[in-house]
Amino acid sequence: MNAEIITIGDEILLGQIVDSNSAWIGQQLNLLNIRVRQITSIADKAQDITQSLSLASSRAELIIVTGGLGPTKDDVTRQTISTYFNKPLVRDAAVLKHVETLFKRFAPDRMMPEINKAQADVLDGCEVLFNDVGTAPGMWIEHQQIKYVFLPGVPFEMKFLTTNRILPKLRDGQREAVAHRHIITIGLGESFLAREITDIEESLPESIKLAYLPKLGLVRLRLTQIGESESSIDYFHNLLVERLGRHVVSTSDISLEQAIVESFTQKGLKLATAESCTGGGIASSITSVPGASCIFDCGIVAYHNTIKQNLLGVDPKVLDQYGAVSEQTVIQMAEGVKKLSHADYAIASSGIAGPGGGTPEKPVGTVWIAVSGKNKTISRLFNFQNSREINIERSIAQALAMLWNLYIEELDN
Amino acid sequence: MNAEIITIGDEILLGQIVDSNSAWIGQQLNLLNIRVRQITSIADKAQDITQSLSLASSRAELIIVTGGLGPTKDDVTRQTISTYFNKPLVRDAAVLKHVETLFKRFAPDRMMPEINKAQADVLDGCEVLFNDVGTAPGMWIEHQQIKYVFLPGVPFEMKFLTTNRILPKLRDGQREAVAHRHIITIGLGESFLAREITDIEESLPESIKLAYLPKLGLVRLRLTQIGESESSIDYFHNLLVERLGRHVVSTSDISLEQAIVESFTQKGLKLATAESCTGGGIASSITSVPGASCIFDCGIVAYHNTIKQNLLGVDPKVLDQYGAVSEQTVIQMAEGVKKLSHADYAIASSGIAGPGGGTPEKPVGTVWIAVSGKNKTISRLFNFQNSREINIERSIAQALAMLWNLYIEELDN
Repeated sequence: MNAEIITIGDEILLGQIVDSNSAWIGQQLNLLNIRVRQITSIADKAQDITQSLSLASSRAELIIVTGGLGPTKDDVTRQTISTYFNKPLVRDAAVLKHVETLFKRFAPDRMMPEINKAQADVLDGCEVLFNDVGTAPGMWIEHQQIKYVFLPGVPFEMKFLTTNRILPKLRDGQREAVAHRHIITIGLGESFLAREITDIEESLPESIKLAYLPKLGLVRLRLTQIGESESSIDYFHNLLVERLGRHVVSTSDISLEQAIVESFTQKGLKLATAESCTGGGIASSITSVPGASCIFDCGIVAYHNTIKQNLLGVDPKVLDQYGAVSEQTVIQMAEGVKKLSHADYAIASSGIAGPGGGTPEKPVGTVWIAVSGKNKTISRLFNFQNSREINIERSIAQALAMLWNLYIEELDN
Repeated sequence: MNAEIITIGDEILLGQIVDSNSAWIGQQLNLLNIRVRQITSIADKAQDITQSLSLASSRAELIIVTGGLGPTKDDVTRQTISTYFNKPLVRDAAVLKHVETLFKRFAPDRMMPEINKAQADVLDGCEVLFNDVGTAPGMWIEHQQIKYVFLPGVPFEMKFLTTNRILPKLRDGQREAVAHRHIITIGLGESFLAREITDIEESLPESIKLAYLPKLGLVRLRLTQIGESESSIDYFHNLLVERLGRHVVSTSDISLEQAIVESFTQKGLKLATAESCTGGGIASSITSVPGASCIFDCGIVAYHNTIKQNLLGVDPKVLDQYGAVSEQTVIQMAEGVKKLSHADYAIASSGIAGPGGGTPEKPVGTVWIAVSGKNKTISRLFNFQNSREINIERSIAQALAMLWNLYIEELDN
């Protein structure tokens, strides 16, 4: 089944909020083997709503609309769909009672304004999707073989109605299965990867699609199979995993940080960080993963040289002779924090993130990263030459990639 | 001018990534008084791309398309637009040289595959938007009075090209001047703020609009004046700043982190951090600001209790009696890191970010934050009860707000 999502509201078009609702709905539909063909964000305008509904109904059998069901006058969705479907709005008695109860709870001393009662207005003949967690109900409308669902835009109300009212209804009508398999790879650029697996990619049947999703040093491969048994997708998944060997970080759809936390947890390993130019970003990206406390005890942000000396034990002579942004310093930082925290692995960064602080010898974007492992410490110089934000982001990504590579190397030995 | 944004790529439709690019572009265009009328997300499919371009060109004069410019064969955008505009693709020599240089830098020992060269293919007659920070260039195409812009989907490349290539071109082409003034406020909710300035808002001329942009404890006020001299916008800006007094964090459009770095630099103050549940996120948000090294020497991520004891000097008895997530511990963490680093101010966090680790007494989302200043230490308990990501994000925002409030209070004394 093809679906489309339409979000109504100026906030997304103005960039005041990011549309995370659609991504969430996309995930849910995907799990139910329903393919989202298009997501459209439009303003609270009758003409735009009508055009979007009309176009979507020419392409999809399921149309999910969020937003525009609030009580204020800039929400025109109800009137517009009444015209679009050529059916009147009727006031639902059960919903009205619910709206009145909620209003009393939040404002016990006030009379409910007429405008709020309009939230109980639903399209005549629709299936009312009762909203336990908010005032505006959802509506399920079947019209000329197409399913239309209207939902409030408030994320937790939308999620409640989707989970409890819509997905159960959709779960029945499935004809075709959709299956996905993922491979997270490291150490091969998108084009090298493509060359490495050309023959496998060319042998894929029509029903299986391969997508490359590159991101900061990793390439995520996604196989999607539509409409057949899952045996062949697993066959190709295995083929790819075998071919890519040590470049495979994970065979499921996780981040490098998640892979590190999972693997280190399994092996009982601990990681520590000593950051200068990344300013806590490496620690932050590791600790964003649930369960990071199993592998991470300690991180030091050593922005000033005295902290590098006093906490991490970097030799003042090294700082004097080579400077803070040097291989010697970053190695001592990594080894220092490893010792301090009794960790098995440690990452250190020192560089010039910019925009200030560059010199002809060490321009902005010069970054040294060291990773100290069980048996050795590796270090590498990068020249990112970008904005502060990007220099930091890339330093973090490269540091985690270096950690992964050393971890895999030491695993083999 | 009306604009539309089209994003190409399955990842958004599958819900694997949230479309934050469009919101960012929407903000930038809005500042130029260009109204985004629709945002459309579609798959890497020639037919869908063609239909979207065709429909968008019937509604808007500016169409910004992101994504689908990668080197692999699932990116069909280039071929599709060649057909759509009925013009061949040509290989741009300068871009090819740039792609080769970048390739050499990242993989000095390898031959560049043919597939990468295709990234230098651009539409014949387009204006090539040279991409300093990545391989795929952008393209600016004017066709039947409509401006089409094609950009890579990688956020930092998209942002670089928008900021440095597209916005300047759009700014030059504008007929009416657009001026903005900002006020960043803290400590007043949106509705209280509105009540505080009702009379000023009502006295605004037709040509000046006031927008409220609330986000995580701050409210950003934006005055926009279209088409007149800038004198009156400054008059109203001053009126608002005067009225809001100590609630004003900044009179320009900067983040709270930037305001902290600026103010602390001016006063010669230093900040330190001792983080548990925020895992380096507070240090990271401060050090994301250029010039942060003037105010920030040291941050400790003390995830494990032994680090809280050994590095920050938290009393083991306090940890035993009250636990790591307690007012007593977080106060000792803040005071400990302040002493350790000789800073003037210190922030500490300790909480249960989740999803694991909650108890009936201290459920997920329980977070203690302390800020130690020149004369006193303040602390506060929060109950965010959200996902790990949101709990961390809110903890950081609240910690910075608490720091700012204590700083302003101690400034007055």
